[in-house]
Amino acid sequence: MPALITYRTPVQEDWVDYNGHLRDAYYLLIFSYATDALMERIGLDADSRGHSGQSLFTLEAHINYLHEVKLGTEVWVHTQVIGFDRKRLHVYHSLHRAGFDEALAASEQMLLHVDLAGPNSAPFGERSVALLQGLVDEQQDLEAPAFIGRVIGLKK
Amino acid sequence: MPALITYRTPVQEDWVDYNGHLRDAYYLLIFSYATDALMERIGLDADSRGHSGQSLFTLEAHINYLHEVKLGTEVWVHTQVIGFDRKRLHVYHSLHRAGFDEALAASEQMLLHVDLAGPNSAPFGERSVALLQGLVDEQQDLEAPAFIGRVIGLKK
Repeated sequence: MPALITYRTPVQEDWVDYNGHLRDAYYLLIFSYATDALMERIGLDADSRGHSGQSLFTLEAHINYLHEVKLGTEVWVHTQVIGFDRKRLHVYHSLHRAGFDEALAASEQMLLHVDLAGPNSAPFGERSVALLQGLVDEQQDLEAPAFIGRVIGLKK
Repeated sequence: MPALITYRTPVQEDWVDYNGHLRDAYYLLIFSYATDALMERIGLDADSRGHSGQSLFTLEAHINYLHEVKLGTEVWVHTQVIGFDRKRLHVYHSLHRAGFDEALAASEQMLLHVDLAGPNSAPFGERSVALLQGLVDEQQDLEAPAFIGRVIGLKK
């Protein structure tokens, strides 16, 4: 199957710097909205959040900036579930635009399933586990993500 | 010397989620403003940017979310220069608030010096190199950053 598109938006005026290019933090905001959309697909949507009081918190994110993006450009996010355990979810988002084959940015993230009543970390519910496993199964033929497992550093 | 404080701000209303907590992307926005402030300290301030047409682009960032931050909380950024080469700068930002000893978040970043006329990557000018080396020298007694050189992944 093709990559899962979780979020689509034009680049907004509040998101660009004085050169009219998307500022680094706003790439991550777009990926943050993509994670919100992913939550809906794994049974943690706004309704069930209100009901179950469960959410995903970002523990850690790594982002690679590959190309500039201009104000007004329509962009979208591909999301791949890399893996999950009882409480954690490892995802990969990439940012794309029409007419350009390469990703504009890529971000690998570790997310924690949280019971907001604590707030405490909590195991995924059965329905979420089934939906997550469904996504992993659907995505098993996708290419391995390009920007994953990376370490930042200057060459010595 | 104590850590260099590059940026200080209260957590703003636009930056929080429905629970009143700082959203993941906005931690990075605060660090992005800290990088802007760092630019001034290394001779790439707004005036000289306009004149020299040089800037820093973020190549890659890794961020660890350690504690939640609420709307209105006054936070500040400590910035450490980890190293630099001809064109690249490796920095470490951490986020802090009063009355709490631990960092709220930490981000290691690789930045590229860019001539905006291209835009192309370009070597740092002599003045920037001297100012960068001054920061490295001043900061040599600081503790090694806690969240650096990390790889994201689920334990197998």
